[in-house]
Amino acid sequence: MSPKPSASLNILGRLPRIVVIGGGTGLSVMLRGLKQQPLDITAIVTVADDGGSSGILREELQMPPPGDIRSVLAALADAEPLLAEMLSYRFNNGKGLAGHSLGNLIIAAMTDISGDFVTGIRELSRVLAVRGRVLPAANQAIVLKAEMSDGSVVVGESSIPKAGGAIKRVFIEPPDVDPLPEAVGAIEQADAILMGPGSLYTSIIPNLLVPKLAEAIVNSDAIKIFVCNVMTQPGETDDYSVSNHLDAIQAHIGHPIFDYVIVNDGEIPEQVHSMYAEKGSKAVLVDMDEVTRRGYKVIADTLVLFRTYLRHDASKLSQHIYQLVTDWVQRKG
Amino acid sequence: MSPKPSASLNILGRLPRIVVIGGGTGLSVMLRGLKQQPLDITAIVTVADDGGSSGILREELQMPPPGDIRSVLAALADAEPLLAEMLSYRFNNGKGLAGHSLGNLIIAAMTDISGDFVTGIRELSRVLAVRGRVLPAANQAIVLKAEMSDGSVVVGESSIPKAGGAIKRVFIEPPDVDPLPEAVGAIEQADAILMGPGSLYTSIIPNLLVPKLAEAIVNSDAIKIFVCNVMTQPGETDDYSVSNHLDAIQAHIGHPIFDYVIVNDGEIPEQVHSMYAEKGSKAVLVDMDEVTRRGYKVIADTLVLFRTYLRHDASKLSQHIYQLVTDWVQRKG
Repeated sequence: MSPKPSASLNILGRLPRIVVIGGGTGLSVMLRGLKQQPLDITAIVTVADDGGSSGILREELQMPPPGDIRSVLAALADAEPLLAEMLSYRFNNGKGLAGHSLGNLIIAAMTDISGDFVTGIRELSRVLAVRGRVLPAANQAIVLKAEMSDGSVVVGESSIPKAGGAIKRVFIEPPDVDPLPEAVGAIEQADAILMGPGSLYTSIIPNLLVPKLAEAIVNSDAIKIFVCNVMTQPGETDDYSVSNHLDAIQAHIGHPIFDYVIVNDGEIPEQVHSMYAEKGSKAVLVDMDEVTRRGYKVIADTLVLFRTYLRHDASKLSQHIYQLVTDWVQRKG
Repeated sequence: MSPKPSASLNILGRLPRIVVIGGGTGLSVMLRGLKQQPLDITAIVTVADDGGSSGILREELQMPPPGDIRSVLAALADAEPLLAEMLSYRFNNGKGLAGHSLGNLIIAAMTDISGDFVTGIRELSRVLAVRGRVLPAANQAIVLKAEMSDGSVVVGESSIPKAGGAIKRVFIEPPDVDPLPEAVGAIEQADAILMGPGSLYTSIIPNLLVPKLAEAIVNSDAIKIFVCNVMTQPGETDDYSVSNHLDAIQAHIGHPIFDYVIVNDGEIPEQVHSMYAEKGSKAVLVDMDEVTRRGYKVIADTLVLFRTYLRHDASKLSQHIYQLVTDWVQRKG
């Protein structure tokens, strides 16, 4: 699908502004679709990661974890495919190198060259001809903690799903971290705000715990859309239905925030079910009654593709989103 | 100085082709000047390094050492200044990262992504909009060995100057390494071949030990120019005069090959002398009589700039070279 800027320019005199909030693979997959639409995209990306290459750099170089940002930059890059490939390259060998993502190392270098993380990302975005803006949820690393249903507290994003219990709530350290003014500004000027798909407690909610970000989202008159995961995540959303996802977000932010929820109602092949079941994951129950009773409007469609894993069909998903956004803009106008 | 392509296109109908052979800082400094001239540049770069970041990657990732290539790519890159800065960035912290050059890691990744070193460099050159072609002297790492005047043999490029003795000759392992066909082709089609400035035994001569490269250079009817170092290098060229440099090259290749020698005859300030003397380095004696007696023509000028170190004045040097090349092309034509 090629962009059709004229369609949207007719309404607003500019592209509709969408703010996408999250992290992880889900976010990148969706952005690859979304950037094909005539939208002005700002991605606000979590900085709570503490595992793998990001975790090592976070600890050894005292910088915010770059991994989620890197995936988003690679997804939105319009430059040379080779540059995006470089960004995603991971070293298999070499003492101290094995496991590191080259893109993470590039962000680390840019952070040092530019003097800070946010400027480094901005400069790198320019080199990569990134379509849109990529902002970390904060200009510092955030420690994510979870209070489990048994009252215990698990510290660290990567440790939370491994704990294997039921999560009662997550919270961040420091609790009063400031968001970037650009991120708050982007939310204030947004026509649409989008969350998901992605890890509920470790990619989506951490961003909502940055106090002024949550406030700006609640106060915004943008259309607010949640894209629900198709499968549950072991140690995070075991046995969750769609309404459980929405309730978890509402519990953390103190308000219901979404206008629309996009869910998959396409069939998942039996062998995919079995493959996921082995890892303790199953399809998220689409409890339509519960969701609509809470006042959410629902878009349901066959939204999954199966390759090695289940993935959202980024193209179809982004067409739904684009439609919702342009309808909203038209009604507002 | 801005390029004046029209001047040279008038003679040949194309840019004069210059092949520059070497490695190390000297080569990069000169190329920064040379790329401002309307010349078609091919750099053939040594792969004998075994120290520092290059040495670690060579050993741990089983690849040719990337450091000399990286410096040349940074010198010839026409893209974003930021990309060149990234290429030259060195990590100061991080277990396994400290000391590594980001550019070396990028070349390592590109080698893995593209399947081999030469293709990786070519792809990276494209991304960096490199002005010219950058070719390794071979598609494999070369081990450099030195026979010292006391008969002992020192193994490894980085160990040779540290041995502190007088070098009798250097040789390579494997001795019958093949050059790239593109490198031989570039030499065959060259209007000019340029060597130096740079470490005589560890950056310049290693390239001449690749059998077919030396042969192609000897057989070429290009004008052949040697840019002599301004200062001696401890453990390599202690007490060497200009003619000693030329004799060393002739001894390794079996023939005198240069038409012109470019030397500095500008004054070196006393405090620079003292600074270099502390490191065991002094000005290379310009023994004009000896040089001309051997049949070399000499260009002598004030060619040094002093910042933290002495450096060749790349702009002035490249103007001399450009003049020599265009005169040669005109006479040949």
